[in-house]
Amino acid sequence: MEFDIAIIGGGAAGVSAVINAKILQKKFIWFASGELSKKLSQAELVKNYPGLPDVTGGELAWTLKNHCESMNIEPCEEVVTGVYQVEDGFSLLAGNNSYEAKTVILCLGVEAAKPVNGEEDFVGRGISYCATCDGFLYKGKTIAVICTDKRFEHEIEYLCSLAEKVYAVPLYRGYEIKAENAEIVLKAPVKFEGGKRLERVVFKDGFKEVDGAFLLKGALSPAILVHGLKTESGHIFVNRDCSTNIAGVFAAGDCTGRPYQYVKAAGEGNVAVHSAVEYLSKNK
Amino acid sequence: MEFDIAIIGGGAAGVSAVINAKILQKKFIWFASGELSKKLSQAELVKNYPGLPDVTGGELAWTLKNHCESMNIEPCEEVVTGVYQVEDGFSLLAGNNSYEAKTVILCLGVEAAKPVNGEEDFVGRGISYCATCDGFLYKGKTIAVICTDKRFEHEIEYLCSLAEKVYAVPLYRGYEIKAENAEIVLKAPVKFEGGKRLERVVFKDGFKEVDGAFLLKGALSPAILVHGLKTESGHIFVNRDCSTNIAGVFAAGDCTGRPYQYVKAAGEGNVAVHSAVEYLSKNK
Repeated sequence: MEFDIAIIGGGAAGVSAVINAKILQKKFIWFASGELSKKLSQAELVKNYPGLPDVTGGELAWTLKNHCESMNIEPCEEVVTGVYQVEDGFSLLAGNNSYEAKTVILCLGVEAAKPVNGEEDFVGRGISYCATCDGFLYKGKTIAVICTDKRFEHEIEYLCSLAEKVYAVPLYRGYEIKAENAEIVLKAPVKFEGGKRLERVVFKDGFKEVDGAFLLKGALSPAILVHGLKTESGHIFVNRDCSTNIAGVFAAGDCTGRPYQYVKAAGEGNVAVHSAVEYLSKNK
Repeated sequence: MEFDIAIIGGGAAGVSAVINAKILQKKFIWFASGELSKKLSQAELVKNYPGLPDVTGGELAWTLKNHCESMNIEPCEEVVTGVYQVEDGFSLLAGNNSYEAKTVILCLGVEAAKPVNGEEDFVGRGISYCATCDGFLYKGKTIAVICTDKRFEHEIEYLCSLAEKVYAVPLYRGYEIKAENAEIVLKAPVKFEGGKRLERVVFKDGFKEVDGAFLLKGALSPAILVHGLKTESGHIFVNRDCSTNIAGVFAAGDCTGRPYQYVKAAGEGNVAVHSAVEYLSKNK
């Protein structure tokens, strides 16, 4: 196995996890946007992160990033689109690459993780999260591309170069989609429908018939990302030690449930790494 | 009830709890030494408190104290020696005073909490934690006074003024005990023995016959402090939301178990307050 620990997520939980993974001298890979958690840096004023009175979200994000940089920790900016159990560990698909790790710590946050009605039913049957992996399947076809982050806009254009017709759904501000075969749809999908395969993306006031849909987002719904992961009302089920129902998979932060608080997330990131290290030493 | 929440403990968990109790506009009382957690300020270097890279324990303690002061939060420096269930809440005995609160958050740490062998068996039957409460019971008798902190040295002298003979056991450096009837014993007790009542304090190489023993320490063993509290291998049993087996009592930090880490403690302090507030709103 290439890595001892794969940590997914760049919020307070992810940062806390990587800091400890580094101190504990584990081989780890950290998947996170270079900007760290977008939600974090948008928070206006954080009064209850002990030790940092009255910081803005931007300042807190900066100081967390600075903490990582001071320890020479850099994230891998690829988005993980699948975590698969393999012998002795897990294989993580990210962009065109795959990475192997003995344990996985999910610090996915909560906002990005809400699946759209019907989304889970059509994964692998018309719904894909990876343009570079599955784009070629839709050559000459009609697809919808729902994108939550400007970072992934180049993937919309890539898909436009393959498909015949693209309904592009940018769920962010300041989109610049230039492809001629793209029809921009400025509303969020509310449902995915179909039979054996996806057939329709439903919006509040109508629908589009499609052969497939790409969902380009920073974080997938946990149960979609990790097959068989137990969730409870949208949160990952964890024990006190941040272990999940899958041996070797741990979770921390908002994705494990309320309260959605930075220091709760940071605390769990710490606990999750310590549990992962204990797991590693027991399963050598 | 006088207070919504009573928070006991001045480490990272306690600080995190009071900050949130203040923000959430609850009536609370905070029991902690003005110096905050002694263990905290003694830590050499803390590298894994996210956002504060490479701080010493002293600097972390200072910044936590500063956070409290910036919000006008001051601790009550009395030591809580008993938490009793009363109608609609809890009564907390501290020094000569008692305080009433609807909920209690225990942030007791872990070091001070280890009971000596036999200690729990003789509570109220020869063992006391409160010189001012029970001292008069031992007028003219022979007692042992085991003291873990220089802060409580004046209580040894008070007990010497009442008892006939005192075996004084200072478990700290730089003791100055001047009473003529005090015999200084420079080793820690390993066991308490007796029949219906305490009869002997046992040391590694002998014992002293006593009528009673006072244990003057900053934090009591959780199960002694709160009658009926469920513990597991010396830690307070808590659920994911930091609730204990007693409705209205929550716990956070090292006293709930490993890993013994500042940010884990701070995270749990946050969770415990949110759970206490939810409990308060359900039990109005």
